[in-house]
Amino acid sequence: MTEVTTRPTMRKLINDPADVVDDYLVGLEAAHRDAISYDPAARIVTRSEPVAGKVGLVAGGGSGCEPLHTGFVGHGMLDAACPGQVFTSPVPRQIVAATRAAETGDGVLHVIKNFSGEVMNFGMAAEILDFEDIAIESVVVNDDVAVADTGHNAGRRGLGATVLVEKIAGAAAERGDDLASVAAVARRVNARARTFGVGLSSCTPPLRGRPIFDMPQGQIELGIGISGEPGRSRADLCGARELAELMLDEVVPDLAPQSGADVLVLVNGMGGTPDSELYLLYGEIERGLRERGLRPVRRLVGSYVTSLDQIGAALTVLELDPELIELWDAPVHTPALRWGI
Amino acid sequence: MTEVTTRPTMRKLINDPADVVDDYLVGLEAAHRDAISYDPAARIVTRSEPVAGKVGLVAGGGSGCEPLHTGFVGHGMLDAACPGQVFTSPVPRQIVAATRAAETGDGVLHVIKNFSGEVMNFGMAAEILDFEDIAIESVVVNDDVAVADTGHNAGRRGLGATVLVEKIAGAAAERGDDLASVAAVARRVNARARTFGVGLSSCTPPLRGRPIFDMPQGQIELGIGISGEPGRSRADLCGARELAELMLDEVVPDLAPQSGADVLVLVNGMGGTPDSELYLLYGEIERGLRERGLRPVRRLVGSYVTSLDQIGAALTVLELDPELIELWDAPVHTPALRWGI
Repeated sequence: MTEVTTRPTMRKLINDPADVVDDYLVGLEAAHRDAISYDPAARIVTRSEPVAGKVGLVAGGGSGCEPLHTGFVGHGMLDAACPGQVFTSPVPRQIVAATRAAETGDGVLHVIKNFSGEVMNFGMAAEILDFEDIAIESVVVNDDVAVADTGHNAGRRGLGATVLVEKIAGAAAERGDDLASVAAVARRVNARARTFGVGLSSCTPPLRGRPIFDMPQGQIELGIGISGEPGRSRADLCGARELAELMLDEVVPDLAPQSGADVLVLVNGMGGTPDSELYLLYGEIERGLRERGLRPVRRLVGSYVTSLDQIGAALTVLELDPELIELWDAPVHTPALRWGI
Repeated sequence: MTEVTTRPTMRKLINDPADVVDDYLVGLEAAHRDAISYDPAARIVTRSEPVAGKVGLVAGGGSGCEPLHTGFVGHGMLDAACPGQVFTSPVPRQIVAATRAAETGDGVLHVIKNFSGEVMNFGMAAEILDFEDIAIESVVVNDDVAVADTGHNAGRRGLGATVLVEKIAGAAAERGDDLASVAAVARRVNARARTFGVGLSSCTPPLRGRPIFDMPQGQIELGIGISGEPGRSRADLCGARELAELMLDEVVPDLAPQSGADVLVLVNGMGGTPDSELYLLYGEIERGLRERGLRPVRRLVGSYVTSLDQIGAALTVLELDPELIELWDAPVHTPALRWGI
């Protein structure tokens, strides 16, 4: 038996807090060798069986938001993901390595969430790769309706729509679309999606060892992101039905979908919320969507874009069209999302 | 907009705490109409498209352990599930209704976790159904190695192995095995599986509004069940590697698998633990299994048998044989488990 001297006082299943990202990636690879491989030297996760003659998809971001992005590598989604330290963007070297791994001759799409560090580092990686013969396109995801500018981002943040962009653009790449077409459908998903998130607690980064901000019971942070930052404002916690209405009133008018539109609904947990509560919230949101004349025809309920152990949820609504539905339904086999295969 | 007067002070996404079970089931059905139907009058969840000429599988138990069992209804697993109130067994009337719904002429298997209330109420339901022309077999799951007898159970409790029994027996029923064969494979899974669970927090039942027991940071309850009860003993929290060793030392000697055996590993979250920590723990457990000469060839990492919002995890190890692997790999389409379809 290996001796372990670090004794965490947080309520976390971890070893040394400095090692959480690597320890997680080792476990993820061990559990999903059929889908992914982890390269600890380059700190990238790649599809275990690269596919030639296909546009490559690459994404990366701060750790702590799992399964985003490492849990979405595999058939029908990403070809490579590069995780940064907790709540910190990956460095350009990682993005370069991930892009090279994803390139099989048909170019690479960078899926970038609109956070300043991420945009800057993906930009630097693209400059470095400009000397190599790799065609690169990028889509910047900015679906958050809560805040326009913060210290972390210029313009709206990229949140839950990132999962939808990765799934749908991944399916387009898998069926053989060229780089321009894959980039176009990724941008269409981002343009037709909006997100609003709420937090019922703060979260505890492993190296910090205590919650980022003070959060009494009975209150709620409105308009949170995915890096443990406080929301746009704080209010008294309400019931799930009232909360669903509040979230829909943020998301739907901003999206301004066509009357009677088909929509995909993502009810996303922030890491510390049981799925049973997310389903309860989904029931209220579906009711509210129907009352607004919309048709929820696809849905995803679970914790897909998280902030460590934060209690809370985010609503993403995507206005669909027949092609987006077909691409959403296409088979996918990643650690966190799997169907049809 | 509907007015909601109940304002929960817990950190929960719910309406009136008295309605959590029904509100969850409404949301689950709304999100998964392709797999399940919810009958609020009978309070049972059934497969949306019943299959004739197949043994029916029925399970039920206290709510608060979601997705168990309602999230496992669908192709390749359960035909009907009956949820009780939070941490309370379903009543015989529910079990009778679920059994009738699952019967298509080939008999019904009751999957019962070894808790006194559940065993008693399934027994009463079977007595009631004795006057009807339904062949019933039952399997009592008792995989827990932590405690032999408590106020809630005589003999070992049924924990994570329940998911494995439901998946594998469900696949046997789906391929057309008769009732005796389905019951036999269910009993074989239970006989070859062991579980040990730990809690880093208590949990908060909605109607109680506060944690069941006091649990300081930096401590761990060893040998918990799935009803929010304290464990067998309390200790200082250790790192994930040491914890994996502790769990393996409980599970593996009790299972006493053949040297070099293929095993299936379930690393199960209790509801409030992020999947990233479960993957980290899985990495340590896989290492420990290999050091013990075992071959982890199948695995399931996620929150499948929970205690509301409890932070913690449970390890289940199942010794496999070729038929169990084939049945595990068979297609499944339920709200909480899906592959191959």
